[in-house]
Amino acid sequence: MTVLFNFDVTGTDGKARTGVIRTPRGNIRTPAFMPVGTAGTVKAMLPESVTATGADILLGNTYHLMLRPGAERVARLGGLHRFMNWEKPILTDSGGYQVMSLTELRKLTEEGVRFKSHIDGSEHLISPERSMEIQRLLGSDIVMAFDECTPYPADEATARSSMELSMRWAARSREAFGERPGHALFGIQQGSVFRDQREESAEALKAIGFDGYAVGGLAVGEGQELMFEVLDYAPGLLPADRPRYLMGVGKPDDIVGAVARGIDMMDCVLPTRSGRTGQAFTRRGVVNIKNARHAEDPRPLDAACTCPACRSYSRAYLHHVFRAGEIISSMLLTWHNLHYYQDLMAQMREAIAAGRFEAWQRGFHAERAEGDIPPI
Amino acid sequence: MTVLFNFDVTGTDGKARTGVIRTPRGNIRTPAFMPVGTAGTVKAMLPESVTATGADILLGNTYHLMLRPGAERVARLGGLHRFMNWEKPILTDSGGYQVMSLTELRKLTEEGVRFKSHIDGSEHLISPERSMEIQRLLGSDIVMAFDECTPYPADEATARSSMELSMRWAARSREAFGERPGHALFGIQQGSVFRDQREESAEALKAIGFDGYAVGGLAVGEGQELMFEVLDYAPGLLPADRPRYLMGVGKPDDIVGAVARGIDMMDCVLPTRSGRTGQAFTRRGVVNIKNARHAEDPRPLDAACTCPACRSYSRAYLHHVFRAGEIISSMLLTWHNLHYYQDLMAQMREAIAAGRFEAWQRGFHAERAEGDIPPI
Repeated sequence: MTVLFNFDVTGTDGKARTGVIRTPRGNIRTPAFMPVGTAGTVKAMLPESVTATGADILLGNTYHLMLRPGAERVARLGGLHRFMNWEKPILTDSGGYQVMSLTELRKLTEEGVRFKSHIDGSEHLISPERSMEIQRLLGSDIVMAFDECTPYPADEATARSSMELSMRWAARSREAFGERPGHALFGIQQGSVFRDQREESAEALKAIGFDGYAVGGLAVGEGQELMFEVLDYAPGLLPADRPRYLMGVGKPDDIVGAVARGIDMMDCVLPTRSGRTGQAFTRRGVVNIKNARHAEDPRPLDAACTCPACRSYSRAYLHHVFRAGEIISSMLLTWHNLHYYQDLMAQMREAIAAGRFEAWQRGFHAERAEGDIPPI
Repeated sequence: MTVLFNFDVTGTDGKARTGVIRTPRGNIRTPAFMPVGTAGTVKAMLPESVTATGADILLGNTYHLMLRPGAERVARLGGLHRFMNWEKPILTDSGGYQVMSLTELRKLTEEGVRFKSHIDGSEHLISPERSMEIQRLLGSDIVMAFDECTPYPADEATARSSMELSMRWAARSREAFGERPGHALFGIQQGSVFRDQREESAEALKAIGFDGYAVGGLAVGEGQELMFEVLDYAPGLLPADRPRYLMGVGKPDDIVGAVARGIDMMDCVLPTRSGRTGQAFTRRGVVNIKNARHAEDPRPLDAACTCPACRSYSRAYLHHVFRAGEIISSMLLTWHNLHYYQDLMAQMREAIAAGRFEAWQRGFHAERAEGDIPPI
């Protein structure tokens, strides 16, 4: 029998969950971190290298792909998986967030958002219906409902009006998505930092009915403390038998904190973007490879890491190629960072399954608190 | 018994030769193309990918490495092979060519060349003795004598005076190199386009005695016709039992023409640099991937090519990622181009060994004359 789309929670520890999302394109082990492949590529990585880091799924950006190369073109070329040579699952965002953050001259109405492309100034409309169409043309496995990511800070009235618009758009997204066996549609909870609005949003989404539920409107400048406050209750408002996805998060300690609060999926540009700016994530915190202290350091970034950058290169080499502006610097540091993130997820899955997630978290924080190895 | 350094010609066809250079770090099949790894990296490639293209040896630039990260630093870090994670042979140039082409405020004297770094303006001297020292510190397997690459055009008197200086520097290079079992020193013939000077230069080098001989001072703007005129006699002036290396060449048809005239080794930035500017070499000539005609072309660059770019991606994808400025564009096109160059060398080695090099050359030119496949 062909697997369509389902989610099994196979273990819990406190609020933390581990499990598996089954799709026709393969299983996604949760908690899962999704690398971001904005424009049909996880920047500076070949897809087989992304797979080698342990990623089960990646995220594509509807906004970028609709503008270049265009959703219809991707469809004519056989869909996004074939286009970018990635056979595993792909989740696409709805385009809403990037439209609001990257474009100027945009106009938001009940219908959707009209905007001008940041690439060539051409005019476009993105609505719940068009977003569903684009994500279908791309061939996305997990489709996100079209929403407005409420900016932070927002007063209660603004947040409510934005959340209510997103809930009307969620219903239109569900209607436009239709029945697509093997493909999933996720709804997105809004409500900013207001608990009553988060509750109302969750109820509205459950009434519509989705294959999974995202917590939206966080990681938009509110800070970790406030984000965790919302995450203390928001995931619990969503159905326990469906995946819960925290959008756009985050730093390693954000991710650990989110998993501890019941989140199953996350995505963030941080590991890839940092890889291009010389920042490496390690068990002992962030290493800034451009610092002069690394110029003659023969040691790897992280002696316990098994990624290619750590197995075969010294900090001195990574420092040199970063300073020289060589592409291999982005290639190696991105690989390392994605490997670090996936290793983090694997450790959490194992700790949750073994019922020792709290002890694992203490170890995680203690190791980071040590800071980087002392200079040579 | 440890292999030190030797060269066997295993087959000839007309003036063309095929053979093998044996070194402690592995064999180099000739004719050989050496990818350029200027600053400790073949740009946009991991070393294992360079190996996968079929390269037996790569070239490092003394000038770039002496300035950044510095030869003494590379030595303290275990040498260039370990530093850049490349275990096979490395040939380093002498630094002379780049000093003259990249620096300003340089002063050439009998002693050597004083110059200011193009990176930070610091002052340096490079002389035959210092060049030998730097190449020893880097751990180069094939060391090039320090010479002046005579600019083109040069009148006879200028060319002679430059050639004679290079021959005095060649003697000093040989003296400074000393005895280094397992490492080879190559002399460099100069003499511009003047046959008598090429003869004198060859005699001078043979009197000194080297492990291999380069033809220098070509591919500096004289054009293919004039270059081939010189190559009609210059390689034959050099010892037949030693490798003959044509420096800085070239386009695919330059390479084929040089091999036909008795050249065993070549290097050029063309496949790597072109990979970063959207130009792909194929059996049917150069494909400019940024052209709009490729935007929706589902076919690979070259259907007969087995490189990752051709196996797994369409022209449409390569067009898209180039236009979007994505790093994967440089990664895939560089890989393709290096694969094309290594495949070209492999075809020539086989054709020469089989005694059908002339027929092979006709096929090579006929296929290129067809031009790219017609647009869809």
